[in-house]
Amino acid sequence: MNQTTEQLLSHYSVRAFLDKPLSKDQIRLLVESAQAASTSNFVQAYSIIGVSDPKIRKELAGIAGGMSYVEKTGQFFVFVADLNRNKEIAESKNENPASLETTEKMLVAIIDAALAAQNMAVAAESMGLGICYIGGIRNDIKRVSELLKIPEHAIPLFGITIGYPEQNSAPKPRMPYQLVYHENEYQTKETALYEAYDEIISDYYTNRTGGARNETWTEQIALGMKKPTRLDIKAFIEAQKLGLK
Amino acid sequence: MNQTTEQLLSHYSVRAFLDKPLSKDQIRLLVESAQAASTSNFVQAYSIIGVSDPKIRKELAGIAGGMSYVEKTGQFFVFVADLNRNKEIAESKNENPASLETTEKMLVAIIDAALAAQNMAVAAESMGLGICYIGGIRNDIKRVSELLKIPEHAIPLFGITIGYPEQNSAPKPRMPYQLVYHENEYQTKETALYEAYDEIISDYYTNRTGGARNETWTEQIALGMKKPTRLDIKAFIEAQKLGLK
Repeated sequence: MNQTTEQLLSHYSVRAFLDKPLSKDQIRLLVESAQAASTSNFVQAYSIIGVSDPKIRKELAGIAGGMSYVEKTGQFFVFVADLNRNKEIAESKNENPASLETTEKMLVAIIDAALAAQNMAVAAESMGLGICYIGGIRNDIKRVSELLKIPEHAIPLFGITIGYPEQNSAPKPRMPYQLVYHENEYQTKETALYEAYDEIISDYYTNRTGGARNETWTEQIALGMKKPTRLDIKAFIEAQKLGLK
Repeated sequence: MNQTTEQLLSHYSVRAFLDKPLSKDQIRLLVESAQAASTSNFVQAYSIIGVSDPKIRKELAGIAGGMSYVEKTGQFFVFVADLNRNKEIAESKNENPASLETTEKMLVAIIDAALAAQNMAVAAESMGLGICYIGGIRNDIKRVSELLKIPEHAIPLFGITIGYPEQNSAPKPRMPYQLVYHENEYQTKETALYEAYDEIISDYYTNRTGGARNETWTEQIALGMKKPTRLDIKAFIEAQKLGLK
């Protein structure tokens, strides 16, 4: 175990920040750390939008479900899978970007954006900052795109709020690694492994809430799979002209 | 700048490894570091398949385009966006996983998998290992899924080869951060920024290849957008019953 793996294993999401903006230098280091992540065939097919405008933050916080830590934070970043840049470059050279609307290129852009985001998260925590991913911007992906003036061939995937933490916490226990890791082929895992993990998570909630919550992980998952949500995303992506082929 | 951001900014892909397998402890630390990444609503919707079997590695290396560093490496990992686990959990509790085939859930699984992968990459480099992402497994995503026995409701996204580096290299210069970073809304960027970057990349190739290559970044991008590739991926994902709604 070294300092970096120790940091990775100590990660927890922060949901309360000081009202203190990040400096330009901090933002630049975060963005450049994000950019240093691997990128498929060097396409760098993503954009990062830093939202400092309080009006936009307020509306994003509302869309995400009334999250104050989108408004009161160091900086709020939105990660965008971005093939518009590539399209414009191709067209400026009179090339037809024929691969633009393929599912392959969309996957590349989404994965590129996510790898960059996680590098930013790791960089932020190494700088003593706290982070929380905000998937809740997908509650109204169309309005978010209007607000941030996202062009066609680009998708705002998620936000990350980064700032000076006003709270400390501790990592939430992940699945035993044997449930995630498979050797040479995908394996059905033993029920006993899930049962042991369920106990850990139930205890975790019991301790954190003084008994107000005590559900198991598998209960949480079963519940989460019941209700389809964000059913506009498929049509939104098609309207952005991505993943059509 | 601290040790972690220094490491992030020093990243380069390694494409030649010693023929020395990673230990079980190393693999476990890599997987647990991956798992420590943020996960949407705590769903942990991914699996990691470690491929040590030389026959499977050989076929994967062939699919990826004859990449020896998929075969000769410390360990080869395939990251899988995995909603099959959630489906099985829901069904074991007699719940209907009605959200299973939504585009939203597919995005969650893809992003979860990518965040985990980047944590693994960062952990590996902190341990003195080298890494290279292998998107080339998507050259024949159907065959890869057969080989690794990937069930429905799961997608093998990419591989990562991790091992003891047999080469040193240096980071490939990313776009100036102003091209990636936007303030409050998506902005069209100045041509001069691209031109300056093109010069950097052309010089980079010239120096590395003794003049054999000297293309600019925008030339590379325009070329890469011309030819649609991997046109089977859309149908594959549909056959896996993901992103249908």
